[in-house]
Amino acid sequence: MIPLVLPSAVKIVEVGPRDGLQNESKHVSSADKISLIERLAAAGLSQIEMTAFVSPRQIPALADANEVAAGVCKLPGVEYSALVPNLQGYEAASKAGVTSCALFLSASETHCQKNINKSVAQALESFQAVSQRARADGNRLRAYISTVFGCPYEGEVPIAKTIDIARSLLALGVEEISLGDTTGMGTPLQVARYLAELFAELPPERFACHFHDTRGTALVNSLIALQSGVKIFDTSIGGLGGCPYAPGATGNLATDDLVYLLTSMGIETGVKLAELTAITSWICQEVLQIEIPSRYAKAKLAELTRKDLVTITP
Amino acid sequence: MIPLVLPSAVKIVEVGPRDGLQNESKHVSSADKISLIERLAAAGLSQIEMTAFVSPRQIPALADANEVAAGVCKLPGVEYSALVPNLQGYEAASKAGVTSCALFLSASETHCQKNINKSVAQALESFQAVSQRARADGNRLRAYISTVFGCPYEGEVPIAKTIDIARSLLALGVEEISLGDTTGMGTPLQVARYLAELFAELPPERFACHFHDTRGTALVNSLIALQSGVKIFDTSIGGLGGCPYAPGATGNLATDDLVYLLTSMGIETGVKLAELTAITSWICQEVLQIEIPSRYAKAKLAELTRKDLVTITP
Repeated sequence: MIPLVLPSAVKIVEVGPRDGLQNESKHVSSADKISLIERLAAAGLSQIEMTAFVSPRQIPALADANEVAAGVCKLPGVEYSALVPNLQGYEAASKAGVTSCALFLSASETHCQKNINKSVAQALESFQAVSQRARADGNRLRAYISTVFGCPYEGEVPIAKTIDIARSLLALGVEEISLGDTTGMGTPLQVARYLAELFAELPPERFACHFHDTRGTALVNSLIALQSGVKIFDTSIGGLGGCPYAPGATGNLATDDLVYLLTSMGIETGVKLAELTAITSWICQEVLQIEIPSRYAKAKLAELTRKDLVTITP
Repeated sequence: MIPLVLPSAVKIVEVGPRDGLQNESKHVSSADKISLIERLAAAGLSQIEMTAFVSPRQIPALADANEVAAGVCKLPGVEYSALVPNLQGYEAASKAGVTSCALFLSASETHCQKNINKSVAQALESFQAVSQRARADGNRLRAYISTVFGCPYEGEVPIAKTIDIARSLLALGVEEISLGDTTGMGTPLQVARYLAELFAELPPERFACHFHDTRGTALVNSLIALQSGVKIFDTSIGGLGGCPYAPGATGNLATDDLVYLLTSMGIETGVKLAELTAITSWICQEVLQIEIPSRYAKAKLAELTRKDLVTITP
């Protein structure tokens, strides 16, 4: 039999409330966002990115970051985080009681400039103040590196760029780095090669993979990443969150699809799959009224009559 | 780096014209079916299942099997096959000039009974006459075993059942056996285990895998099958062909998605990906007017303006 080296447990970082909802054109009430986060925690997700403290002009859908972050009834043992672009964002998050923040930049210069209006060096420079403040506050920092496995403007991005950036982020005190395949350009052999080069230099336990399913490769890449030593994966409930560069294209890897795959392989996630399906049905069909992107959830819901669904009342 | 043992080339068996269209409620003209088959051959597909010679009451969408099979302008080096349930179907196909036929049965008794109204033993018995005739005619026989990786009625199906059936089929002179994951229940470790047991007994080069993407696992299972020694995969253009047991659920693995994955790993298929995208756009958007199931094609078409599309005039 082919040798598969797999971990016994994996941490899922649920990014749906932020990454999934940030591009939604339909208005979602703060109450529904809070309910989504509380249901996700009740389903067993131990790290949830709730919202982003960014300019409401940039992301109007998350303009209620304060209400959402402060309004969530927090479960013990669950990490509730928020995306912050800079010190100002960090301070706003902190004021709203958030103790875990996530910074972001890109591995490719063009994407970095277009996405955050800074060069990679300028972004890293600007993170220093946030890092000092977070250390003083005893707060946790995560960072996203976008376009690690390909850039829509520059094409292939050498992994050396990511290694340099990751080294700087770790030196700044960032605890967890998420490697983003922002427009779903990663392919299995590339992921294997990139992760082998990265983990020859830096410790695998500090890295998460954040795959997009734009070209259908998110689960294959996840399997390769698992075998390469990655034990943290970012996913979005139901597969919420398209890719802004390709309208109609599939976006975030669905929490449902990854948890189903991991569970089938005996890998522990702590997440209850039946409850994920109930949440996906609620957020996609009732709240957003969109077709469910997750293939697992779509198949499961076709099998079930509504009364069979697990209902979670947080 | 993790060890990946992959073949240098893979044969794709395109089943879209039969498996993809058999459940379509929209009427597709014989001329469009013929055009689809001719375009697929021109795109580099070397084995194409054109239609099924079954009772028009059972599959009304393929009632024009004669016109389609006889009407296709055949390219040299391409194998054009048809599904046949029994000797009567074989004779009809043969009369229409078809020199390659595919039989079918299921690994699970319940599915076999419900699908073809015969037990596994009765089905194998009935194949004997077809096999004798095919041998006399010098025609090629393929066979599908459905529900190999799980049955919607019986759940898990032991691989020993499939091994027994496959042994009988090979003894009958069947040249290629396709292992069907009919409702997409297969998962990676199971596929690895099942194929290891099967290939300990029977030669891998005689087997194809036919994965369904119902729960999103078709590409992951394909990667595992590739590593297990499978070099033949059945796929459907654009991902046509839902699963009749779960309305709205995703069905056949898309030719586009598998060819994209294989190409990214340097595995030769002989298929031109850009031309697949053009065919998918035509059959899904123009002919059937449905949303494209293939994630690769959906992403690619979102990137392209229509004038960039390769046009294939067979």
